[in-house]
Amino acid sequence: MKAPGRGKEIDNIMEDKILMGHGSGGKLMNDLINGLIKDKFGPCSLQLDDSAVLPIGSNNIAFTTDTFTITPIFFPGGDIGELAVNGTVNDLAVMGAVPLYISSGFILEEGFPIADLEKVMDSMRKAAQYAGVQIVTGDTKVVEKGKADKIFINTSGIGLLKSGVQRQDIETGDLILINGTIGDHGISVMAQRNNFSFSSRLLSDCAALNLLIAAVLEKAPGAVKFMRDPTRGGVASVLNELVHHRPFSARLIEEKLPVKDEVNGVCDILGIDPLYAANEGKVIMVVKKEKAAAIVDVMRTVKEGEEAGIIGEISETYPGKVFVETGVGGKRMLPLLIEEQLPRIC
Amino acid sequence: MKAPGRGKEIDNIMEDKILMGHGSGGKLMNDLINGLIKDKFGPCSLQLDDSAVLPIGSNNIAFTTDTFTITPIFFPGGDIGELAVNGTVNDLAVMGAVPLYISSGFILEEGFPIADLEKVMDSMRKAAQYAGVQIVTGDTKVVEKGKADKIFINTSGIGLLKSGVQRQDIETGDLILINGTIGDHGISVMAQRNNFSFSSRLLSDCAALNLLIAAVLEKAPGAVKFMRDPTRGGVASVLNELVHHRPFSARLIEEKLPVKDEVNGVCDILGIDPLYAANEGKVIMVVKKEKAAAIVDVMRTVKEGEEAGIIGEISETYPGKVFVETGVGGKRMLPLLIEEQLPRIC
Repeated sequence: MKAPGRGKEIDNIMEDKILMGHGSGGKLMNDLINGLIKDKFGPCSLQLDDSAVLPIGSNNIAFTTDTFTITPIFFPGGDIGELAVNGTVNDLAVMGAVPLYISSGFILEEGFPIADLEKVMDSMRKAAQYAGVQIVTGDTKVVEKGKADKIFINTSGIGLLKSGVQRQDIETGDLILINGTIGDHGISVMAQRNNFSFSSRLLSDCAALNLLIAAVLEKAPGAVKFMRDPTRGGVASVLNELVHHRPFSARLIEEKLPVKDEVNGVCDILGIDPLYAANEGKVIMVVKKEKAAAIVDVMRTVKEGEEAGIIGEISETYPGKVFVETGVGGKRMLPLLIEEQLPRIC
Repeated sequence: MKAPGRGKEIDNIMEDKILMGHGSGGKLMNDLINGLIKDKFGPCSLQLDDSAVLPIGSNNIAFTTDTFTITPIFFPGGDIGELAVNGTVNDLAVMGAVPLYISSGFILEEGFPIADLEKVMDSMRKAAQYAGVQIVTGDTKVVEKGKADKIFINTSGIGLLKSGVQRQDIETGDLILINGTIGDHGISVMAQRNNFSFSSRLLSDCAALNLLIAAVLEKAPGAVKFMRDPTRGGVASVLNELVHHRPFSARLIEEKLPVKDEVNGVCDILGIDPLYAANEGKVIMVVKKEKAAAIVDVMRTVKEGEEAGIIGEISETYPGKVFVETGVGGKRMLPLLIEEQLPRIC
């Protein structure tokens, strides 16, 4: 597996036009977000978490938005509609919120088959039913052929916040958990784009995480210190964001990382590290060490957590960094991704 | 001024592909929404109003979403960023909600100049400040050149609902108000697209309506029975939706309709009726007859309502229809628009 990035000096990227990498979940995007958006919309808009937490009346809500431009729109294990609902449900759930309401904004390319729109909407309906959220409001725009790519979907979501997750409590010794195999979504989509025949069993992990997360929060209140769904940029990017400028690192144990053989096979051919590949039904949790085993047990009782496990720990080695410890005692650093690796993966 | 539509039998439109008209705000879109979306997402998702009204905790909120694909992105009197904030603020405000929070989802075409993105974001920031809302969460996706058109923006918004507006209370004799001139947005964009030199004074009316509406609701509580911003499809489409299958009509008085000379000039050339052209800073209100004059007075104290006036009434003639009474006693029917008249106007 190759290290990601293309060898550019990361402090030397100054562009005057939007590049594909600005949508990648890596450093280019962070620069754009942290720079431009903070500058224009003010620090309040700088969303380090997956949802904004906001007071409304006497309650706190989580509010999030996500636009889906994935290609192809039908992929092994899901489609853009299912992805759009689950993605927003998950962004609310990882904040500890109970997802309630979803909006749906379509951009349709002229000539897009209505039969495909029906399939996408069926998937949205089923995904919403499974997650227990309502699609309550929507908007549809149509643009000329060649001015979009089939269908783009924005979903925004509102959740009611009951229990909070405090990332500042993280300390050395906390354990890092994931609810199943790594990289399935990104790699299955890439395999389909490349027409790899040997990967026919590979499916996206696209799934709603709110039932899993609710079970964990109920059974182990106060034990979860951080949750995030590792979508664009994958597990490595989420952990990099977590440890950046902090006095601790994320130490992953290679032999504990659940990666399917087919995913490793595709990754070897494409030169991609699965730790940077998108997941759409996974949550990374940082939890109190003494509660980790119990949380894994709870996860395994829920469909979306059957292959849950501990994959690493918060360490004092290499503060601010993410690294993998290999079986023979070696260490492989996982730097912040600079540029687009898997464009239009969600 | 020509009547709209292209002479198709409106009950005979069955297509298997998305047409430009599916995004028009007319009958094609209504068929798509009422048919497909109701069928797939269930009756709860059928949003007859501009926002969904939802309980959350102990409060009621309004929640809305809108995607902006206007071309050109910079137009006389505004740009896509200002439009995206104001459009969602207005969808909340016409529900009687106090707009609080806005999300911002960008789709950027590879190669889009970052300087243009900065201009758009500056406009969003200024519009949000003026309207008193916060842009609290966002998402950015980038697609390949030729797979989008410069920039598309989705904004979703949350407002706190204080006073409700009950459309079922409407009755014959209620008066129809608007806060200013009709068709400015749609016609100024069309004039720019056609490079009409004589229309250089024409500007979009793009504006936030929440301050105006708040003033009216405060000064005349209980007097407003219906509010809606006449965007895509214009004044005629909003009123058609209001009276459809109801035992009353909307009777407009031609000499009371505020239309700028330049707008009429462009409309004559293009064969467009300004009553079907998009507005982006206008609200149609149906109000109790005895309160109408006072409401107009309140409106005129606010910048966005300086040219407010009574333009018609709820009538018992031609139930379910919208019509204009001309100075010489003639009547011109304003049917529901069938197809796209002004594509990508918002």
